[in-house]
Amino acid sequence: MTQLKKVKVGIVGGTGYTGSELLRLLARHPQAEVTAITSRGEAGVLVAQLFPSLRGELDLAFTTPDESNLTACDVVFFATPHGVAAAQAGALTAAGVKVIDLAADFRLQDLVLWEKWYAHKHPAPELVPASVYGLPEANRDAIRNAKIIANPGCYPTATQLALMPLIENNLIDVADIVVDAKSGISGAGRGAKVDMLFAETYDSFKAYGLNGHRHLPEIEERLSIMANKPVNITFVPHLLPIIRGIEITAYANLTQEITLNELQQLFETRYANESFVDVMPTGSTPETRTVKGTNHCRLAIYRPQGRNKVVVTSVIDNLTKGAAGQAVQNMNILFNLPESMGLDTIALLP
Amino acid sequence: MTQLKKVKVGIVGGTGYTGSELLRLLARHPQAEVTAITSRGEAGVLVAQLFPSLRGELDLAFTTPDESNLTACDVVFFATPHGVAAAQAGALTAAGVKVIDLAADFRLQDLVLWEKWYAHKHPAPELVPASVYGLPEANRDAIRNAKIIANPGCYPTATQLALMPLIENNLIDVADIVVDAKSGISGAGRGAKVDMLFAETYDSFKAYGLNGHRHLPEIEERLSIMANKPVNITFVPHLLPIIRGIEITAYANLTQEITLNELQQLFETRYANESFVDVMPTGSTPETRTVKGTNHCRLAIYRPQGRNKVVVTSVIDNLTKGAAGQAVQNMNILFNLPESMGLDTIALLP
Amino acid sequence: MTQLKKVKVGIVGGTGYTGSELLRLLARHPQAEVTAITSRGEAGVLVAQLFPSLRGELDLAFTTPDESNLTACDVVFFATPHGVAAAQAGALTAAGVKVIDLAADFRLQDLVLWEKWYAHKHPAPELVPASVYGLPEANRDAIRNAKIIANPGCYPTATQLALMPLIENNLIDVADIVVDAKSGISGAGRGAKVDMLFAETYDSFKAYGLNGHRHLPEIEERLSIMANKPVNITFVPHLLPIIRGIEITAYANLTQEITLNELQQLFETRYANESFVDVMPTGSTPETRTVKGTNHCRLAIYRPQGRNKVVVTSVIDNLTKGAAGQAVQNMNILFNLPESMGLDTIALLP
Amino acid sequence: MTQLKKVKVGIVGGTGYTGSELLRLLARHPQAEVTAITSRGEAGVLVAQLFPSLRGELDLAFTTPDESNLTACDVVFFATPHGVAAAQAGALTAAGVKVIDLAADFRLQDLVLWEKWYAHKHPAPELVPASVYGLPEANRDAIRNAKIIANPGCYPTATQLALMPLIENNLIDVADIVVDAKSGISGAGRGAKVDMLFAETYDSFKAYGLNGHRHLPEIEERLSIMANKPVNITFVPHLLPIIRGIEITAYANLTQEITLNELQQLFETRYANESFVDVMPTGSTPETRTVKGTNHCRLAIYRPQGRNKVVVTSVIDNLTKGAAGQAVQNMNILFNLPESMGLDTIALLP
Repeated sequence: MTQLKKVKVGIVGGTGYTGSELLRLLARHPQAEVTAITSRGEAGVLVAQLFPSLRGELDLAFTTPDESNLTACDVVFFATPHGVAAAQAGALTAAGVKVIDLAADFRLQDLVLWEKWYAHKHPAPELVPASVYGLPEANRDAIRNAKIIANPGCYPTATQLALMPLIENNLIDVADIVVDAKSGISGAGRGAKVDMLFAETYDSFKAYGLNGHRHLPEIEERLSIMANKPVNITFVPHLLPIIRGIEITAYANLTQEITLNELQQLFETRYANESFVDVMPTGSTPETRTVKGTNHCRLAIYRPQGRNKVVVTSVIDNLTKGAAGQAVQNMNILFNLPESMGLDTIALLP
Repeated sequence: MTQLKKVKVGIVGGTGYTGSELLRLLARHPQAEVTAITSRGEAGVLVAQLFPSLRGELDLAFTTPDESNLTACDVVFFATPHGVAAAQAGALTAAGVKVIDLAADFRLQDLVLWEKWYAHKHPAPELVPASVYGLPEANRDAIRNAKIIANPGCYPTATQLALMPLIENNLIDVADIVVDAKSGISGAGRGAKVDMLFAETYDSFKAYGLNGHRHLPEIEERLSIMANKPVNITFVPHLLPIIRGIEITAYANLTQEITLNELQQLFETRYANESFVDVMPTGSTPETRTVKGTNHCRLAIYRPQGRNKVVVTSVIDNLTKGAAGQAVQNMNILFNLPESMGLDTIALLP
Repeated sequence: MTQLKKVKVGIVGGTGYTGSELLRLLARHPQAEVTAITSRGEAGVLVAQLFPSLRGELDLAFTTPDESNLTACDVVFFATPHGVAAAQAGALTAAGVKVIDLAADFRLQDLVLWEKWYAHKHPAPELVPASVYGLPEANRDAIRNAKIIANPGCYPTATQLALMPLIENNLIDVADIVVDAKSGISGAGRGAKVDMLFAETYDSFKAYGLNGHRHLPEIEERLSIMANKPVNITFVPHLLPIIRGIEITAYANLTQEITLNELQQLFETRYANESFVDVMPTGSTPETRTVKGTNHCRLAIYRPQGRNKVVVTSVIDNLTKGAAGQAVQNMNILFNLPESMGLDTIALLP
Repeated sequence: MTQLKKVKVGIVGGTGYTGSELLRLLARHPQAEVTAITSRGEAGVLVAQLFPSLRGELDLAFTTPDESNLTACDVVFFATPHGVAAAQAGALTAAGVKVIDLAADFRLQDLVLWEKWYAHKHPAPELVPASVYGLPEANRDAIRNAKIIANPGCYPTATQLALMPLIENNLIDVADIVVDAKSGISGAGRGAKVDMLFAETYDSFKAYGLNGHRHLPEIEERLSIMANKPVNITFVPHLLPIIRGIEITAYANLTQEITLNELQQLFETRYANESFVDVMPTGSTPETRTVKGTNHCRLAIYRPQGRNKVVVTSVIDNLTKGAAGQAVQNMNILFNLPESMGLDTIALLP
């Protein structure tokens, strides 16, 4: 077999948790090579010094953005705060470099909404219309030819995979959906915040963001596109005292007669060819630990007490399928590689 | 001040988590004295040997039920599997002893429902009508004169306190309420089960009991009594990797125009005289750690995005307000003691 | 009984973990009243807003040091960084106010050593000689009459209680003692540090401070005073992924023939009148959870394989017996109150 | 490249944690194929039903020992209680099948010691002398030609790798070594025991096994062979509230003049060609999380305060390098495969 030329990868902002997760995955990817990783704060420091799990795995140092010659890459991942990718995407795509943004700059097509929720002017509104929302299970064909990919948020990924078959088949009342979501603490990032200290979060649990989480407009916009009408979500996130893992429990009222078996069948058919979505057998309860460090979403469908309410629970790893893993999946699609290449980890149990 | 005679307390089944929590609370109660604690399996063993946190606090050994002379007690708590309290309550109450059952024998007035959910014949149906449901915030007067008290379940306590003001004021559509509930693992008891091992539950999260949890009929029956019409709950419990703590997030549709401020005011007024219910200021997010080891319920009210859905989050300690603490609160009411006597612990923070 | 006048307490620096632990304990202390709590950063904020576990328990706001009129207090606790207490202690003691420093300003009598380990000039060397090291089990009489009390460090408390009977009786080779120590993360304080984030510490374990922890000179100085000759400790602390709790396992070579039973007897006799030291029966293994939130030290003595090495394991709560609880114990001694007043919490189990 | 014939693997006792870890590793091993996995209790059940992390990864069911035709395998792993492997090893090796025992049947050459510590008669003493202790870093050549491999215990692996360079070079007083060891809870296995429940172990820490842990004679025998004289270890294990991970901190007195730099150099040289031993730079503190799910041991060397005591800390994953990973490493050596084949996972960080 002819050895393919490896995809040259740049990472902007590699010192946070999505950055380190990209490094973990790409260090083992047979057809990708990280050629540059930027960080102003850590320039000159070996990656393996900051992340000792990479000792012996990756011989690479952080560089300043200026030194990094990102235009020589085939693809650049942005694991940065909001605003950075949009500011640089134009120059990169002009140079023929693909851009995958793990932040939110291209997640909303509705820029009025974007500017309301992100509270500043969008740096490159002209790039938004042609950007592609990178949820492969919904959008694979568009991803293949995209120049800029908006990698979905973690909650939106778990939620869309849970609700997509119901909405595509017009089975539920989209005006009243409840999504009760729980996320591990790595979702809050690697910033030094008192609220995220071990001593403040261990052995406790709470809701947060009840007045509005930025993933809400993303979920509503994407589901509305699927439904072809406005979708209303009551979305309450909670902080789970685990490192990785999102579980969402979604509740909706059925608008058509359909049995649980038929619902199960519908989900299984919808995801039959999706290597990263596992529709578990009726009666299962997806556990976050079974997807930790993997790119899988596992989900299960219920009609409690046989009543009219359909309940779907879905679990992902917020840093993998909810961020870096999905980004690599998108890269694989972009470069015509097998979609699960480099993403075949099995979760540790126990 | 004249020293009151102490309440003589018996505990049947003191080797589980609700039993040990009763011991912790009663060991410090100024007006109660545990005179008997039964356990067939541990008869002869010192309580402090099984629970080393009680070393130096309680000089008491487990005895067999036969030796225990429970009829000499003023009150007997049952911290036993379902069925035990009902079998013994008749003889005890005949002897003038008050009975507080921490299990489910007297939680449902509807015995058809009870026999369906608990899958065996009720041992003493004749005692059920006169038994009193021991949620003081709803039922204080009846408790005062009860002979048998059904101590509420943990999820039902957190749920009723969250929804009571809304239902009493006829503000929500009771035909469609969602309760997304999360409980710490102590709720599963002290039995040796593989599923509850540390290595099976730590760093993970899952829903469970989707096909029907025994607390559902209890919640629906009690709320229906409050509403004076049938209440429908979609109730999904989840297993939280913490020891103690329940959080429930309840979702309902408002049926009347009412602002968030008015809702807040309504809750504050409803609970103004309740020493164990803390209506937190608008915008707060109750954390389970703030009630750990205490008899408090903390709750907060929301209308996300100003939409029609009212959301209430409430937290309790499942072993305290959700079990043993509430049982002691009921005992205080029964014996005309200050309601918070022996229940004034402050949660550890951090 | 005549009601005593309550002890008026000031707390300098009440926003960290030792400060909040002082508040938890003093809020329930029958003979103490917190009249002032200072914090430049949080001046004007209600204590219960920062620590929601204190809602309804303490109606007090932080004030600036200037407003606080500390000289009107009977005793002032310093829960501050090193250097603060020494700078203010002179003025306070001159005004007749007792000072209890929970930091390290008065922990070392050897000021050369102090300045080496704390890397700055001591602010009030003249106050050091008369200050008293506040380990009641070693030093009760001196504490009673002290003006300034150096509240011991957490590791030193657990270590001294474990080794004191051996050293006082000249039973071990003090030139070669190993102390392998493990502390919960609250020991690192409430500062926002990346290293102490939940996502950096959960589900992991490591040694730290191998090049020298500031508690080493404190342990060596105190044990040398007891031994009346230089004591050498190899001290390796480790970071335990729990919030509260210290366990130390101490290893020493016996220099005299003595059986395990005799060792057990020696410890039991030594601590027979100490309400906060629990010598557990031979064969026990002290667990940190049995002392969580309490002022107890539990310990056990071993001679593994009957060899010449004596091993002692001891556990405390680093914030209680290791900090705020011991400080309140010292206050009780200073003001002639029962030593365990306000310190009678029973640990939660589970 | 010619495709090698895959190694046919049988696993006896695959329902515990070492069994499931073998499955995780072998499911991804390019040159191994699990052809049989036995369990009396779970016969007929799909492996992926018991371990949902293996859904889609392994299409294999448990079979009874009788159905399993283990003699058709190239190698059989025993992940069973002590005694099982020894009883079956004779027949298997007679049939030309290699045996790797993950339990203790062949870990001690001294059978008197074995029978004392394991409290029953050894089932096959005649097989012990020719069996090989499978610590590749100490014993690689013998492993290559072994018929029966005794896979080392978890604590002994971490301890030997920490002390080997010191002992081989005769640098320490082997009559007095302290090993303070800490293990995650998965080390206690998947049996349903009250002591290992989440609610009994979370947020706590304790020593255990002080009267003698079965890994002590194994450590002493192996180190004595290295030292060519009797080695004495004071070994105290502790229970760490994490799932996977062992940390040991070893303390010994130097018997020769040697600087820390020289010690560092000695370790680096000793392990220069070992792909699974990472000697970290001076000043590092190995964290268990950096080896979780991997076959690595990371260690660091210290001389605290420049005194005579050398301290080594080492970390491994007890289920991987401490059990199943090392077993696969041994299999690779036995079958002349690259030693790290199938063992190249990178730990998740965070």
